[in-house]
Amino acid sequence: MNARPIAVFDSGLGGLSVIRHLRQVLPQENLVYFGDTARVPYGTKSRPTVIHFALETAGFLLRTEPKLIVAACNTASALAMDELAAELPVPVIGVVEPGARSAVRLAQGRPIAVIGTEATVSSGAYERAIRALAPEQLVISRACPLFVPLVEEGWDSNHPIVKLAVEEYLTPLRAQGVHVIVLGCTHYPLLRDAIASDVGPDVQIVDSGRETSLAVQRHLREHDSLCQDGTTGSMHCYVSDNPALFRRVGSRFLDESVEHVELVEIERYVNVPRLPSASS
Amino acid sequence: MNARPIAVFDSGLGGLSVIRHLRQVLPQENLVYFGDTARVPYGTKSRPTVIHFALETAGFLLRTEPKLIVAACNTASALAMDELAAELPVPVIGVVEPGARSAVRLAQGRPIAVIGTEATVSSGAYERAIRALAPEQLVISRACPLFVPLVEEGWDSNHPIVKLAVEEYLTPLRAQGVHVIVLGCTHYPLLRDAIASDVGPDVQIVDSGRETSLAVQRHLREHDSLCQDGTTGSMHCYVSDNPALFRRVGSRFLDESVEHVELVEIERYVNVPRLPSASS
Repeated sequence: MNARPIAVFDSGLGGLSVIRHLRQVLPQENLVYFGDTARVPYGTKSRPTVIHFALETAGFLLRTEPKLIVAACNTASALAMDELAAELPVPVIGVVEPGARSAVRLAQGRPIAVIGTEATVSSGAYERAIRALAPEQLVISRACPLFVPLVEEGWDSNHPIVKLAVEEYLTPLRAQGVHVIVLGCTHYPLLRDAIASDVGPDVQIVDSGRETSLAVQRHLREHDSLCQDGTTGSMHCYVSDNPALFRRVGSRFLDESVEHVELVEIERYVNVPRLPSASS
Repeated sequence: MNARPIAVFDSGLGGLSVIRHLRQVLPQENLVYFGDTARVPYGTKSRPTVIHFALETAGFLLRTEPKLIVAACNTASALAMDELAAELPVPVIGVVEPGARSAVRLAQGRPIAVIGTEATVSSGAYERAIRALAPEQLVISRACPLFVPLVEEGWDSNHPIVKLAVEEYLTPLRAQGVHVIVLGCTHYPLLRDAIASDVGPDVQIVDSGRETSLAVQRHLREHDSLCQDGTTGSMHCYVSDNPALFRRVGSRFLDESVEHVELVEIERYVNVPRLPSASS
């Protein structure tokens, strides 16, 4: 029994789709969230910058004394996982490994496609995680840079531009006979219907955020750290910019209204003191 | 005669389209450029954050001892012009006023449309600048959030998704009989053909970047500060992230290859000491 919060961070508001799954799977847990909305997105930036930002963003959350930190951002999970694990004094769970594990289980040796941001795909992190579990596995990756702006524009799976963009990015994957497609970005579940309709009913879709919430549950259970006090857990969000926008757009990711959003002045968390090994 | 550089800043690489015009109009001037690629974009962020970032980015350029600073970023020009003018010890020219001036001249009282980022459009800066010159002028504004990602994806005016997005955003403007359309974002000139084809030959297009280069020329001439040493001016670029990407994608904006790109570690320019009135 451990009532300390689970701390979740993301480059922006996409990680709220991971929070949504955590609320379903672990309704009694207290959750804190930090979206680095002043510097979003991470997915177009370089590895050193993503590592730097991820350490600062996660570092801020240490003030809430969490029992566990979740890197809900696929880009941060793909590029900064080693550094986060080395620097943070609490366990860290990213979204890449749980997504990869589920994909391998479902694929049973047939081709897997991974879609994500430019940075996530270039990093090769999903391929490495998949091949660590299934060395012979064929993995095809594709960056879909327009998906995040399309979701943030508020256009859904029925919008003709969304359909056309999904077709543009996924046609090459269909041609290669993929059996499983991993949504390697927290925004992509909001385009799930368009993706499913494009790839057809024979292709299984893995939502890394959903798999991560199950991995968190397993971790807490194994470490006897679940919060089971019989009450619904609390939730508190921090953002580095624009709490009103976060509240408005975030509800689409969370599937409930977003309450308790607090602005963190950027000066409060940049240049957080870090161990010497973390400086780039 | 003044050989000190003209310093140009932008949230990312879009401002290179302003550099391109400066090179044409003022080929003997020495130019320095700073793209804040670690924190790009500014166009989705709040006013206090844009002011903060713009002051830091422009503040860094003071080290090059410029004779003039150009805020090539429409968002920074729209949201932070007063603060930049108050804090910086050299003259600052933004892109909004020159774009507005040209639009008023061309419109001759007929409706003007302004397109730009969410932040630029919400700020109302173009409307204010236009109405300061022509109080009765009808101005219609429209944010086109997908245009920047479409340009950065490398899709040009012939791509079907670009055509569809242009149609989606501009149809309401056409219905209102606009006579002039202002490209209020440095990325938009790269979609000029698609925009021109959608609005038709009777609508005149104003490129704020082009107008700004002419305003810079006028300012230097009036202050007897032109560089006229008979040689072609130098150019040096700084970025806060990913110089290789900047070099590759930037050439499309500059219309020549981008040489001399230097990475500035973010620690070197964040929290630059500022006057007390600038702290948010």
